Amino acid sequence: MPERKKIGIFFFDEMEEPDAVGPWEVLRWWTLHFPDDGYDVVSFSRTDTMVRCARGLRVTADTSMSELGDLEVLMYPGGRGTRAHLLDAPLLDWLRRQRPNTPLMTSVCTGSLVYAAAGLLKGRPATTHWASLELLGEIDPSVLVDADARFVDDGDVVTSAGVSAGIDMALHLVARLVSIERARQVRRGIQYDPAPPV
Amino acid sequence: MPERKKIGIFFFDEMEEPDAVGPWEVLRWWTLHFPDDGYDVVSFSRTDTMVRCARGLRVTADTSMSELGDLEVLMYPGGRGTRAHLLDAPLLDWLRRQRPNTPLMTSVCTGSLVYAAAGLLKGRPATTHWASLELLGEIDPSVLVDADARFVDDGDVVTSAGVSAGIDMALHLVARLVSIERARQVRRGIQYDPAPPV
Repeated sequence: MPERKKIGIFFFDEMEEPDAVGPWEVLRWWTLHFPDDGYDVVSFSRTDTMVRCARGLRVTADTSMSELGDLEVLMYPGGRGTRAHLLDAPLLDWLRRQRPNTPLMTSVCTGSLVYAAAGLLKGRPATTHWASLELLGEIDPSVLVDADARFVDDGDVVTSAGVSAGIDMALHLVARLVSIERARQVRRGIQYDPAPPV
Repeated sequence: MPERKKIGIFFFDEMEEPDAVGPWEVLRWWTLHFPDDGYDVVSFSRTDTMVRCARGLRVTADTSMSELGDLEVLMYPGGRGTRAHLLDAPLLDWLRRQRPNTPLMTSVCTGSLVYAAAGLLKGRPATTHWASLELLGEIDPSVLVDADARFVDDGDVVTSAGVSAGIDMALHLVARLVSIERARQVRRGIQYDPAPPV
């Protein structure tokens, strides 16, 4: 039996709720309904497993960074909590250590700012929340900032635009890791036929 | 100073994560950025404040049912946890007691099944997750089941279709309670320009 592949979603204080929970829903709906695809999704935090999100929601991660093990896919949400991460040397070191062992590093919203601060986006196309596009280019001027994309797939790194764009990116990941048909099944399951009324 | 109005989102075991967190984000983004609009959003649970969602996420509510006080708006998420609620007499009684004092009762996904079981949808138009449309009509054959709507606004009760439809309904609520312009500000804030890739 082949080893199962792990998708890890990072939970941290002041992350934006849907940045994590949107992809969580897409990816968990997929892996729980189709375990034979060989993937598991796990949430992890740095130390304390309960975190307080940017809008006040308290969520508890499944495990901590030290217990996590190797990931196939890392997902880094955004939110104002990322601001402190930009200067957090141990965290940036941890990210750089993940890179060689993590085939796919993904981010939602301002999560890509932290990837840039860790030097992981040098000379590569990427995006972020619309209000942070300029900051992304300031953190690393070599980043090819894409202001229009809903998400940017650059092979072993995929970044998305703000907040709800994480749902679109997560569906793309399912399509890429399994098939378009599988992603459509998930989309149908969560009735993702968005129709913004305003 | 006028009394602040409270929007309560019910958290319960086996609720579908985005049913609660999608509207939570929309409504909290609004109330935290525009406190002068006079609304607050609070999450509440029945007794234990930590609940385990349908896809395994653990979230902790702000308060419990007994501490909640009167609501202006009640929001009832869906998820497989609602199945047990359909036969839960004390919970259905609680819902019926809320009705006369709650100007607006809203539901996401299969939350409307519980409203139907409580007798709150008699002879009224409503919707639910696509896979539960038939069940909604079985619970109360007088319900005018709308199979096509993203959400149904019937005055003092608003029901939405499955899972991600709660985001659209929540934006509609902001437009209704304040203004279309306010709802557009929230939509822009969370970059809700959905573009499903599959």
